[in-house]
Amino acid sequence: MTLPVIGLAEISRVATPSLVFTAVRHALIAHAEGRTSVPAPMVLDFPAHAGDCHVKAGYVEGSPYFVVKVASTFASVNNGLMLVVDATNGTPAAVLADEGKLTAWRTAAAGALITDAMTPVDVDEVAVLGTGEQALMQVQWLRELRPLRRVKVWGRRPSAVDGLCAALAADGLDARPDALAGAKCVIATTAAREALPSAAFRSAVHVTGIGTDMPGKGELPVEVFAGAVVATDDHEQCLDHGDFGNAVRAGVVADDVDLAIGAVLRDGMERGRRSVADLTGIGAADAAVAAAVLAQLVR
Amino acid sequence: MTLPVIGLAEISRVATPSLVFTAVRHALIAHAEGRTSVPAPMVLDFPAHAGDCHVKAGYVEGSPYFVVKVASTFASVNNGLMLVVDATNGTPAAVLADEGKLTAWRTAAAGALITDAMTPVDVDEVAVLGTGEQALMQVQWLRELRPLRRVKVWGRRPSAVDGLCAALAADGLDARPDALAGAKCVIATTAAREALPSAAFRSAVHVTGIGTDMPGKGELPVEVFAGAVVATDDHEQCLDHGDFGNAVRAGVVADDVDLAIGAVLRDGMERGRRSVADLTGIGAADAAVAAAVLAQLVR
Repeated sequence: MTLPVIGLAEISRVATPSLVFTAVRHALIAHAEGRTSVPAPMVLDFPAHAGDCHVKAGYVEGSPYFVVKVASTFASVNNGLMLVVDATNGTPAAVLADEGKLTAWRTAAAGALITDAMTPVDVDEVAVLGTGEQALMQVQWLRELRPLRRVKVWGRRPSAVDGLCAALAADGLDARPDALAGAKCVIATTAAREALPSAAFRSAVHVTGIGTDMPGKGELPVEVFAGAVVATDDHEQCLDHGDFGNAVRAGVVADDVDLAIGAVLRDGMERGRRSVADLTGIGAADAAVAAAVLAQLVR
Repeated sequence: MTLPVIGLAEISRVATPSLVFTAVRHALIAHAEGRTSVPAPMVLDFPAHAGDCHVKAGYVEGSPYFVVKVASTFASVNNGLMLVVDATNGTPAAVLADEGKLTAWRTAAAGALITDAMTPVDVDEVAVLGTGEQALMQVQWLRELRPLRRVKVWGRRPSAVDGLCAALAADGLDARPDALAGAKCVIATTAAREALPSAAFRSAVHVTGIGTDMPGKGELPVEVFAGAVVATDDHEQCLDHGDFGNAVRAGVVADDVDLAIGAVLRDGMERGRRSVADLTGIGAADAAVAAAVLAQLVR
């Protein structure tokens, strides 16, 4: 058996924002309509090396490929790959040695798509909480979808806040470390296990949370869910370990109030209330992006 | 990232029965002692192509590698590979493109090890039920551990029974299609969803079942468990979808009577009662064999 191993340079050449947005949007809508297969992920822990490995699989009906993703984090260093398998005969088609970038891009795309869909069109100022890779990317990818004027930043480490502001300024944005003053659109990107400062959410009309991806995490103050239009990327998963689940367990919202993010992308939503989008990450998005990348490469 | 893809020829060169037996025995004992990590497997179904894909992961504490196995069956054709990952830093180390053979070998080794450990030493006649790859391999691998004189074969298709007898005869064994006459040692290797003919088990002092690996399957008549010493490769898994679980649900045995196969391999067992070993396949055995193969190749 020969199995091509495709490196990041080649992947980056074809994985344009347009390709990733299209694939992720398609996957989220298919997922909302029950046209995906996403088994519960597997987790292996390696406490002696401060490591863990998450294995996810996904398939979007009609796709020529399904995908098994192996993503590990050891001592804060991410690693991983996606194995793309022919969905008509089970033959491994390729390994995408993407160094975790396809996951970062699909996360950025999913967040940006729903932030854009749920935030009133005239809002051009966002607050971003957190200073990691996703803090930068959520803004950059949202900017592909709508003009942004100002970005307010919050993080626990002042040096990281300054670094993110500088990176955003280099992209031509007016970026300032004053997210606690609030903004109409708030994007939370942290790995927090306790709620972020509620001041940051006080003037929010829309909140997107992308950082709560496993049990024990939780970044949104549960009050932001009160009376809000709620959208989840996967109902069961967000109930199990997303910010939505934290709010339900706190008694702030009922466990059946959420819309599917894919349904909001497809149909739009009722305006006039605050909205909250909770993203925990779905294997169908990995599958759609990896399949789209490989389909481009084998053309 | 460069990721070596190692083909079957190279794998076969180092995966001697001795290496596989040693690795599987080590994995089964470690599993019995709680020194393995084996998340619940993932399954994807592709009904339009008569296909499914099983993803298993496993780690044996102290091993330099953990393993993610992707095994698919489409229209009865098996395919798959094992991804071997460095357990100290999460870096993918190699893909073993083993065409499913490592799974076949670890299944054969696990079955042969426990059949040999539980069957009285003077028994040199076995009945094998089923005529597939594992029917032949369970006998061949058991023969690495003890002398065999005669093999009795049973299967639903006479031509397949004749073919297996011929293959065993070519190995110098006295093989006959009379397994329903019974034998002291019985090895069931079928994908049956209903119990095999009870006549085959009437004179059994030991029974090994290796074919019941997913919900809905079941090959052993539940009566063989009555009053028997029972050993399972994984308590929860065998309770969930093994023959042991079928016997428990039928009320034939209590759900806590089973010993761990690894404990029997380590300590031996009480003699004088019929014994039954139920194997559903554990990811730790995949991990141990793949790690041992890669360790040999990188020496």
